[in-house]
Parts: sequence; structure tokens; C-alpha cells
Amino acid sequence: MADQLRWDYLSCYGADHIETPNLDWLASRGMRFNKAYVQSPICGPSRMSFYTGRYVRSHGSTWNGFPLRVGEPTLGDHLREIGVKCSLVGKTHMTPDKEGMERLGITPESTIGALVAQCGFEVFVRDDGTNHSDYPGRCGEDYDQYLRDHGMDGDNPWEEWANTAIGPAGEMRTGWVIENAPLAARVPKEHSETAWLTTRGIDYIEAQGDQPWLCHLSYIKPHWPFLAPAPYNDMYKAADLPPVVRSDDERQTDHPLMQAWMNMRVCKSMARDEVRDLAGVCYMGLIKELDDQLGRLFSYLRETGRMDDTMIVFCSDHGDNMGDHWLGEKDLFYDCSARIPLLIYDPRDQADATRGTATDALVEGIDLVPTFLDFFNGADKSHILEGRSLSPLMQGAATEWREFAVSEYDYATRDSRREVGMDQADARLAMIFDGRWKYVHVEKMRPLLFDLEDDPDELCDLATNPEYANELSRLRDLHFEWSRQHHSRITRSAAQIERMTDAKEPPGIYIGYRDKNELEGDGRQMPDHASG
Amino acid sequence: MADQLRWDYLSCYGADHIETPNLDWLASRGMRFNKAYVQSPICGPSRMSFYTGRYVRSHGSTWNGFPLRVGEPTLGDHLREIGVKCSLVGKTHMTPDKEGMERLGITPESTIGALVAQCGFEVFVRDDGTNHSDYPGRCGEDYDQYLRDHGMDGDNPWEEWANTAIGPAGEMRTGWVIENAPLAARVPKEHSETAWLTTRGIDYIEAQGDQPWLCHLSYIKPHWPFLAPAPYNDMYKAADLPPVVRSDDERQTDHPLMQAWMNMRVCKSMARDEVRDLAGVCYMGLIKELDDQLGRLFSYLRETGRMDDTMIVFCSDHGDNMGDHWLGEKDLFYDCSARIPLLIYDPRDQADATRGTATDALVEGIDLVPTFLDFFNGADKSHILEGRSLSPLMQGAATEWREFAVSEYDYATRDSRREVGMDQADARLAMIFDGRWKYVHVEKMRPLLFDLEDDPDELCDLATNPEYANELSRLRDLHFEWSRQHHSRITRSAAQIERMTDAKEPPGIYIGYRDKNELEGDGRQMPDHASG
Repeated sequence: MADQLRWDYLSCYGADHIETPNLDWLASRGMRFNKAYVQSPICGPSRMSFYTGRYVRSHGSTWNGFPLRVGEPTLGDHLREIGVKCSLVGKTHMTPDKEGMERLGITPESTIGALVAQCGFEVFVRDDGTNHSDYPGRCGEDYDQYLRDHGMDGDNPWEEWANTAIGPAGEMRTGWVIENAPLAARVPKEHSETAWLTTRGIDYIEAQGDQPWLCHLSYIKPHWPFLAPAPYNDMYKAADLPPVVRSDDERQTDHPLMQAWMNMRVCKSMARDEVRDLAGVCYMGLIKELDDQLGRLFSYLRETGRMDDTMIVFCSDHGDNMGDHWLGEKDLFYDCSARIPLLIYDPRDQADATRGTATDALVEGIDLVPTFLDFFNGADKSHILEGRSLSPLMQGAATEWREFAVSEYDYATRDSRREVGMDQADARLAMIFDGRWKYVHVEKMRPLLFDLEDDPDELCDLATNPEYANELSRLRDLHFEWSRQHHSRITRSAAQIERMTDAKEPPGIYIGYRDKNELEGDGRQMPDHASG
Repeated sequence: MADQLRWDYLSCYGADHIETPNLDWLASRGMRFNKAYVQSPICGPSRMSFYTGRYVRSHGSTWNGFPLRVGEPTLGDHLREIGVKCSLVGKTHMTPDKEGMERLGITPESTIGALVAQCGFEVFVRDDGTNHSDYPGRCGEDYDQYLRDHGMDGDNPWEEWANTAIGPAGEMRTGWVIENAPLAARVPKEHSETAWLTTRGIDYIEAQGDQPWLCHLSYIKPHWPFLAPAPYNDMYKAADLPPVVRSDDERQTDHPLMQAWMNMRVCKSMARDEVRDLAGVCYMGLIKELDDQLGRLFSYLRETGRMDDTMIVFCSDHGDNMGDHWLGEKDLFYDCSARIPLLIYDPRDQADATRGTATDALVEGIDLVPTFLDFFNGADKSHILEGRSLSPLMQGAATEWREFAVSEYDYATRDSRREVGMDQADARLAMIFDGRWKYVHVEKMRPLLFDLEDDPDELCDLATNPEYANELSRLRDLHFEWSRQHHSRITRSAAQIERMTDAKEPPGIYIGYRDKNELEGDGRQMPDHASG
């Protein structure tokens, strides 16, 4: 998993401004998903959906730093049940539910506590690529130690070497401000966070014997800070960037929330051409570096024969608006943010028919957990998991598929929430995308509507055009349909419910029988001691 | 809490066929809630809502025997945080989430495991008033032992003494068939389950010192089996029963689910006048017995001065259709089932203004948890709790109140689900009641609609009448509004979210700043080591 990687910055997705030959190779060996959407266009909630196979409204971790509630079943839980080790190398953005753990007497130091605190993963490496920690293991101590071991010392080697450059006068320049993005990080490329995580991923795989495993190799990049090691820092020029996608009409929208969003500092910053150019060039360099490192990983897998029995999934946790639509960062549901690259290589013969092909099926981040369980022949968990195994698609099987994808966004902690005067509880957005029409529910405001067939750049919000009233109504119904579904009924499986239906009443319970004859006529026995 | 007690079988609610002077006395000292609804008209899910303060769609325990998921915060959890003991004397219908507990390494034998397995209660007595147990402590071992101690022996004293009678020829007659309902239970009234639970409740209260406590004194009755001890078994005659409420139009409904429901064995049974008469007379006797025993409890509280500092809440977990609408048992959302009696005595002076009065405010079972927390001055838990404290109503404060009550029903395990050919996942009903209009959403079928102002007996389903299209649409919108609300975002409080909004970014993180000037202009500090 990459972090904040746009789908349209990979050449296998048609990008002509960058070459990503290693990911292209993966696409040629597997299947490319053209309409893959995350469950929230922001790290934490998106990842919690990837790790639980459940929508954000279900797992409840709606924003970065909102803990995943204790007891929420994870990929790791499901895999361990069937004897598959599930490990982490890199970032999760997980915040443990300390209050919930305390309530249940689970200490983070215990074996189970460590799993709960890491959303179900056994930690080989935890590295969130951020500065600070509010929990043991939250941050990148391992990478700090690695840098120190290679002579890169300091209070915070991650920041001082990987995210700091040397300026023209020999001064220290921080990666935290975008004007420094053209400079090379102090860290050499062979010791960058991306290179190091790749090595750690290979170390992990190398250490596994014949036991089945899943490795969540989870990169920080091309997520900010925008600073790449040489030569990636100056591999591209501003002219290489694709044109920014935005319109004056968008800037003039009457929608209060969209106005507020464009007014947020980070959006105003990234909407400036000069800032976008600085950041975008570095972003491309970081992607190129990631592709090169993935090449190293794929070579290792090829050379060790592991391509024969290893499924490889490449994706991102969300994209980056990168100035499009006058927006910076991720957030909201434009394709630059909510749509992700997704490539899956399935080693099995059954997947041969689709190698090198692409599908337009609507796919969601929550589909990965059931895909992995399916790969390892796990039991049906459809009472917990809200996604669907992608295996039928990869095996070219004609299959009924979902009609719409859903993504959610909780802007309760955003400045814009106060700007529009919304209550915390109502700062809710939801996207319903049916493959053509993208409908955005905005609680207590009018919705947005885009026709991606006629307007793939999503420049024209049709929601106020009365011609589209029927579409709005249809999509609103889909949103309602989805909202009503069971999503907390996770303690009884379909098979158990079927058995309860067969049993009609629990043993020893007899309801509404007038007399012995009625009871026996229904095939039931009277209690032993009674004669009538 | 009584079990399966209809609101309209209490004289304080206007019943003229039965006198319940002790509950009437409580009503005269407290407040009577005229429009109190349970979150599901069936024991398990209704109780889990009472015990968590959350809707059924949120806690996920949608049917009897569907375990309450591990980690779902309970009343007991909230009270223990503020030093209040929260104990059980009687029934909960709780099924522990054994799989979830195992996943988290919580054993039922541990202190915390025992609480988790009992939905947060410290067990003084657990007695579910049913025959069989699939979990330690599920059933009525304590009452069995009590009966044995009083010379009532057998393999299953609960069944053989409390739920068995002696027939005219001296033979043993089971309480499990309704024809025996006129007979007296073998157990004398001073040792009945209702009497015993009352004594145990008094024992519990007596054993508490000056520490604050909450006692969930939870009776089995007037729930079936229909067998009362003398003299309650023949205190009433069939002529005392209120007329059955049903119409030929109802019987002829075109609604496939309602047809299927009326066709269920237990409904066909209770729709027969003779069976209803047998059951109803006993039901009245059991209510009279409960009222007498509550009189004993209230006397104890008065005599020990505990009325000065004890809040008393009387309610039921749901009602009983008792042949009305051609239905038996509970289920569905007619007022005989989904509406409950609710009386609250608040000892504080602030509640003096409303003593002996009634309110038509729409109240839900989930309101009790916040009411208790409020009484004990607990912190705001509105990110977890979906109910509202009733204190403002009891203090006569003008307050904005909810506009509609919600109840849910999962018929996945019912015969009728197969009869109508519905998928397990779609066997869902939801009631939206706004104080006048009762709307029942039936997944994949047409809704039901009743106007309780013009038709308080709910005999006329208006949903197919085009005159009411606007009402249907308005109520459907309310259902959608409710469905969209956050209900799993339970790990961050409103105060925490407000602090996150203030902070804008976590410490040490700087997003989208072009340069040092922008950063400092925003009141931020550059990282220590960097100069630009």
C-alpha cells in the first residue's frame, strides 16, 4: 500500500507524464481495477476499512486519531483463526482504543493487547512516517535507529535526515515547507524510508518458512513531507506535470461547504500554481522512487520463486487533490482523492484468463479482506465483512456485482465545519457512485452531482439543474438503502441464523400451545414429569 | 423491569379491568410516561438497548440469543467509572459474545469477563426464568436452590414447582400448555419467582452501605409460562378481560408479511378467543401478583427511609399482543407490544413540580442509561449514548425534545421470513412514530401507516391510501435521517473533537505551507534544527 498516491500518476493507468515500469509489469501479470474507491478519502478511516473489511459508518473510526473500537474484528483476527500470520511492515495510522482496552482489562503489553493496539497486525515494523507518538510503537523508532546505525544521528533522525535538506548556503532546510521540495533529502536514496521499508519487507518475507503469511507492506510515500532523496528530487520539471483540473465555475460555486473548503489554508496554498509545481514535481519523484523500490521487491519475489504462491496486491489508501478543483491534500470525493490504483496479481491458474486485463467493476477498499480470506480458503464471514472477494472477477467468472460504491467523510475536526456552522454530529458527507453518476450527500445542505461519463473531470456540479432531479432521487434512494443495512449484527453468522430458524424455539421452551395435542401435533415432546 | 407487561394492564394507565394500587402509588409520587417505546418489541434486543443506551442498529444484538458484541459499552461500565455499583437481580436475556471474548483473551471466569458476559452487571442474582442454559449463569440455578431449600425438589424445581400445577385427578399439569393456565402453580405464592426476586432485591439493597448503587431488579413475569400461584390463578374471569382489538379488514390485509405473521402458529393460537381467555386471565393474575410484591418492595423503601435518596424506575421490556390484531406474543410495533409502561420516581426536590403528572413526550428505552448517569452526575457520554436524560422532563423544564421514536425488528429467525421468501439480511422492520403517525418500514415491501389520533387502536393501515402519500414521504425522510446518524463513532467525545478542531494539526506536523513566513504567519514554529 502506498499513501496518498493518485491512480492517474501511474503509467499503467494511462499517465504519460511518468513511467512506472515496475507497477506496469505487475499490472501485466495481474488485473487492473479501473474503478476502485476507498471508504474514506483520508488515511485513518480508509485504512481501518481496509483492515476490517467494513464501511466507516460500521467501524466508527471516522477520522485520523479516532481509535478503532476495541473488539472490532480485523483482517488479522480472521487470518489467525485459519492459521495465517498477518504482519505489518510500515504504516497503519492506527490509534488504539485505550479506554476500551482498559475497560476490558487488556494491557498493550500483553500478546493480545499488542494485536488490539495494532488493529490486528503482528508488528514486524511499525512506521507511520510522522513526527510524534502518543502511544508505544506509534511512530518510527525503528527507522530512527536504522538511520543512527548508518551514521545519521540526532534527536529525531527521521526529521533531521529523511525530511531535511541542505540549502545553497549549507543551511538546514526543512521538508515541512514546500519551497524546499526541489532540494535533495539529506538521506541517500539507499537509506530513504521507502528503500528501508522495502528491505524490511523482504527481510520479513525471507524470515517466513512454509507457513502461510500476509505482509502488509505499507509505505509512507508519496505522502508529504515533500522531500525526495537524490536523484528523485530533480528528476522532473514543472512542465512534466499534467495540467491542473479546475474551473472558474467551481471557484464560484454557491455551495457553502465547497466555498468553505476552498477557503481552508491548505487548499488555498495548493491552489497556487507555484506551490503545486513545487509539490507536484517532488510528488512525481517520490512515486518514481517507490516504483524503483517495488522493482527491487518484485525481483526478489521472482528470483526466490515466490511468484508461484504469493498474491500481490498494490493499492493506495487514497489520492491527493494536488490543486485540482482548487483543493489541496486529500478529502472529498473527486476521483483524484477517493479513487485509487489497485493492481492484483493472483498466482493461481484460475486467474490466467484475466492477466494483463482491466475491469470497470466497482470495487471498494473493503473488498480486500474477503479477497485475502478467500485466497486462504477461510470461512464465510459475510455477517461481519461488508466487502466482497474479488476472486470471481480475477477468474473471469460472470458474476453479479455491486451497483454502487460508497465513501464517507467526517469533517467534524475541520476548520470548514466551524466556517459553515455545522454541529459536530452533522459534519457528514457520503459519496454514492454507480459507475457513471457520482452523488455526494451533504448533511443539512444540498447534494453534489457529477456525470463522469460526460464530465470525467468532475467540473460540472449538476445537483441544482432540475433536469437531473430523477438521478438525484435515484441516488438518494441508494444511499438510504445502504444506510439501512445491517452492519452491527456481527455476532451471528448466516449459518447460525438458518439453524435458529429451523429450531423455531430453544429447547425446553413451548410458546402458545393450547394443549398437549397441539404440542405433540407440532412434533414436540411434553416435559418429562408432566402428564398433561 | 417487568417482562412482557402491556402498558394498558395497569390502572394508573387507565385500565379499569385490573387494579394495580402499588404502581398507581408510584405514579402518584413520580412521573408517568404516556408515550414510552422500546427499541425492539422482543426481550433480547430491547434489553440490550436498555443496558447500552443505544439503538438496536447500533449494538447489533438484533434478536434473542444474538450475543451483545464484546466491547459494547454498557450502563455498568459507565456507572463503575464514577464509582457506582451496578448490579443485577433477575433477568437480562444476555448472551455473551464468546467468540469475541476468546479473540480478546477474556475468560468468563475473570472479574472483567464476568461483567462482559453479563452485559456489564455485577450479578447478585441471574435468573432468566427459562428452562435451559447455554452459558454459566444464564439460567435460574439460584431459584432452583431456593426451592430445594424449601422442600421443593426435583431435577428442575423451577419447572416442576413454579411451572407445574396439580390437575383434578392429582396428576402433574405443565405450565407450558395454556389449557392449564387456570390451575394454581404448585409453588405457594410466598415462594413464587416473583416473590423470591422481590426478596432478593430487598436483600441486595439491604446489603449496600452508603455507597451509591443501581439495582436492576428484573422480573420474569407476567411473561409466559402462563401459570400463577394461588390465589392469583383464579382472581379474574374471562369477562374481566378487555375486548380483543382486531378487525376483519386486518385479517384480509394484502400485505404479504402481515399475512405471514398472522399465519404463524403462535398467532393463530392466541387469536382464538378461548386460548386468549385462558392466557389473559392468568396474565392478569401474574400482573396482580407483581403489583402486590412491588408493594412489599415499596414498603421496605419507605420504612427504611430510602425514598429520600433512591430513584425508582418501573418499566417493561415490551408488551404482549394477547390476540390483538390476530397476533400472539410480542413482535411488530402495535402499541400493545412496542409501547411500555414507564413510571419514574425521582427523590430530588427539583422533581416535585411533576409528581403525579404524566407527559406525552416521546420517550425511548435508551433514555434510561443517560437518566441514570445524569442522576449520579456522570460525564457527558453523548458520543456513545443515543438516548437522552429524562431529568429535564421530570423537572418540568421547557426543553426541546425528540420528534420521533424508533423501534426495530429483525425477523431473520422467524418462520414468516421463509414464508415471504426474504433474505436473512433483508428481514428488517423499523418503526418511526412521531406521536401521531406510526410508520413501519418493511424492507423490500410496502410500508404500513397508522394515524393514532384518529385510530388509536391501529386498525386501519393507511399506507396504500394515496391521500397519505405526503405523510409517508415525510416519515420515510425521518427514517433516512435517523439511519444516517453517527452511531459507531464512540471512541471520541464531543470535547475531544472540539480540541482536535482547535489544534488544526497534530504537533510537529505542518501541511501545505509554502515557506517559513507562511508557517510563522500562521503562528507556528519551524522545527528546531532547520533554519528555512
